[in-house]
Amino acid sequence: MKEISKLMEYRSDVKVVDATLRDGGLVNNFYFTDEFVKDLYQTNIKAGVDYMEFGYKADKDMFDTNSFGKWKFSNDDDIFAIVGDNNTDLKISIMADVGRCNYKTDIRNRCDSPIDLIRVATYLNTIPTAIEMIEDSKNKGYEVSCNIMAISGGQESDLKIALDMLGKSSVDVFYIVDSYGSLYPEQIARIADMYLEFAAKYGKKVGIHAHNNQQLAFANTIEAVGDGVDYLDATYCSMGRGAGNCAMELLLGFLRNPKYNIYPAIKFAEKHMNKLKAEGVVWGYDLQYLMTGLLNQHPRTAIAFTKEKRNDYSEFYKEVVAQD
Amino acid sequence: MKEISKLMEYRSDVKVVDATLRDGGLVNNFYFTDEFVKDLYQTNIKAGVDYMEFGYKADKDMFDTNSFGKWKFSNDDDIFAIVGDNNTDLKISIMADVGRCNYKTDIRNRCDSPIDLIRVATYLNTIPTAIEMIEDSKNKGYEVSCNIMAISGGQESDLKIALDMLGKSSVDVFYIVDSYGSLYPEQIARIADMYLEFAAKYGKKVGIHAHNNQQLAFANTIEAVGDGVDYLDATYCSMGRGAGNCAMELLLGFLRNPKYNIYPAIKFAEKHMNKLKAEGVVWGYDLQYLMTGLLNQHPRTAIAFTKEKRNDYSEFYKEVVAQD
Repeated sequence: MKEISKLMEYRSDVKVVDATLRDGGLVNNFYFTDEFVKDLYQTNIKAGVDYMEFGYKADKDMFDTNSFGKWKFSNDDDIFAIVGDNNTDLKISIMADVGRCNYKTDIRNRCDSPIDLIRVATYLNTIPTAIEMIEDSKNKGYEVSCNIMAISGGQESDLKIALDMLGKSSVDVFYIVDSYGSLYPEQIARIADMYLEFAAKYGKKVGIHAHNNQQLAFANTIEAVGDGVDYLDATYCSMGRGAGNCAMELLLGFLRNPKYNIYPAIKFAEKHMNKLKAEGVVWGYDLQYLMTGLLNQHPRTAIAFTKEKRNDYSEFYKEVVAQD
Repeated sequence: MKEISKLMEYRSDVKVVDATLRDGGLVNNFYFTDEFVKDLYQTNIKAGVDYMEFGYKADKDMFDTNSFGKWKFSNDDDIFAIVGDNNTDLKISIMADVGRCNYKTDIRNRCDSPIDLIRVATYLNTIPTAIEMIEDSKNKGYEVSCNIMAISGGQESDLKIALDMLGKSSVDVFYIVDSYGSLYPEQIARIADMYLEFAAKYGKKVGIHAHNNQQLAFANTIEAVGDGVDYLDATYCSMGRGAGNCAMELLLGFLRNPKYNIYPAIKFAEKHMNKLKAEGVVWGYDLQYLMTGLLNQHPRTAIAFTKEKRNDYSEFYKEVVAQD
């Protein structure tokens, strides 16, 4: 029995982070209409969401701005056009990928930017670069998280070293990221314990970003919040890469802090999300994602299977089982 | 941390129960083709599934045999036509609803029947009738479970009295049934503890039947198995009433007993399940089911919303919130 969440109470430290544009952008190349983005912003305010992630700060030398919608790059001016001065309780975040972000020039000082939180996304083998990016953003005045991706494919002993290095950095939040959607709640509990140990030692917070390959994104998120994890990523109707993420509407229904409201999320879903699906944008649980999750693999093969509109699940299984 | 499942090991007492025909039958009025049923039977054998539930033994005085497929009634001869002598490790079950089953005549002696396990489904207010049915089936030679439905809508103190009454009966297995899909894993842990206490006292086993209204059917099932629950219901591709059930393919992927195989489940899904969906059979997670689950209500209003092909989620929310 978890004594932390106790279901009927709440911890006011819990923060909900809407990652719809950022992780959802991975399934429509970030081509959201301005109406969608404005409605999403208003919805997040009404729903009591704490952070709204607009997208990536992708390097324009690496990625062609004509091949992606604007939230792949999340120019400050594009964010300003949506949020104005953002005199609200909703904070703004973007994601900066190690090795794919020209952060020194593209991330301005916070006083000149609409952004509050920079989320630095890294793999275990690029922690020193992540730390350089973290310090750059901290020096510019931002809140900063470090999202360590694909941890189910790494060594726990390496992860501990990474957490210790990050603990000594200026980062505010360590993120558990189940990129492959391969972790079960029992494993999340152990990983959360490990993260929380370093967080307590160094005065940091912990977050979680889950994927729904095994229909566990919501379950893993509420496992984590019961364990003491504070920053919770979710997306409306689970929109996100492959099998998608923890559904915002499920999370808002679960959390007991009176500031959270599910009704605006339902209204937003009604207006926008089934329409996106009807237009051919595809995400969500299906057998190919279960298989890569189960086998602890990157979902890229399952995403290709989906894009090719294949339905020969058993052939796909034989293909992925045979991979090293 | 759960010490029982420990993920890498397994308890050989765990039994997987395929409820596809029975709970899935609720969404297509039990009109399955014989090919589907024969393939399902062979799949369960190959996948290592322990029990296959064929359907209900519904009272033919109450239900018109012309309005439902044959698995609403599950005549012994219809089962024999599929399984022959069933010289396999797969056992056969059917469900008998309190008040909707002419059990004295329709359930024959086990020696004359293909059935191994009778699952008596009851609400909390009909436990004495359930016990009469249990004793009838035990006297006829069957294994018997008692599936106490809609427990999230009942009083825990009543549930304890029911478990004590059932403990003194001849029943073999008590089932936790989350009919409304409203329970979170933390609640399942508490309920499982309660069931297991009575099970230990009276020498019974415990099972779980979950619904996916909040995308927690699989998560709640693996929570339960970690707590010591042995009988696990699942359906292929979650096929079942409303939001559906725990997906068989997820459960087979999770369980570590070498006798379970996911590949036959994938083959079966590939051949049959998307075809059913393409033919217009509708089940699975959607916002209306989240809402009734969250509000701890019977899904009948959400099922009606689905049948009417409504998509005005926000109006529906106002309707269900306003209900007593």
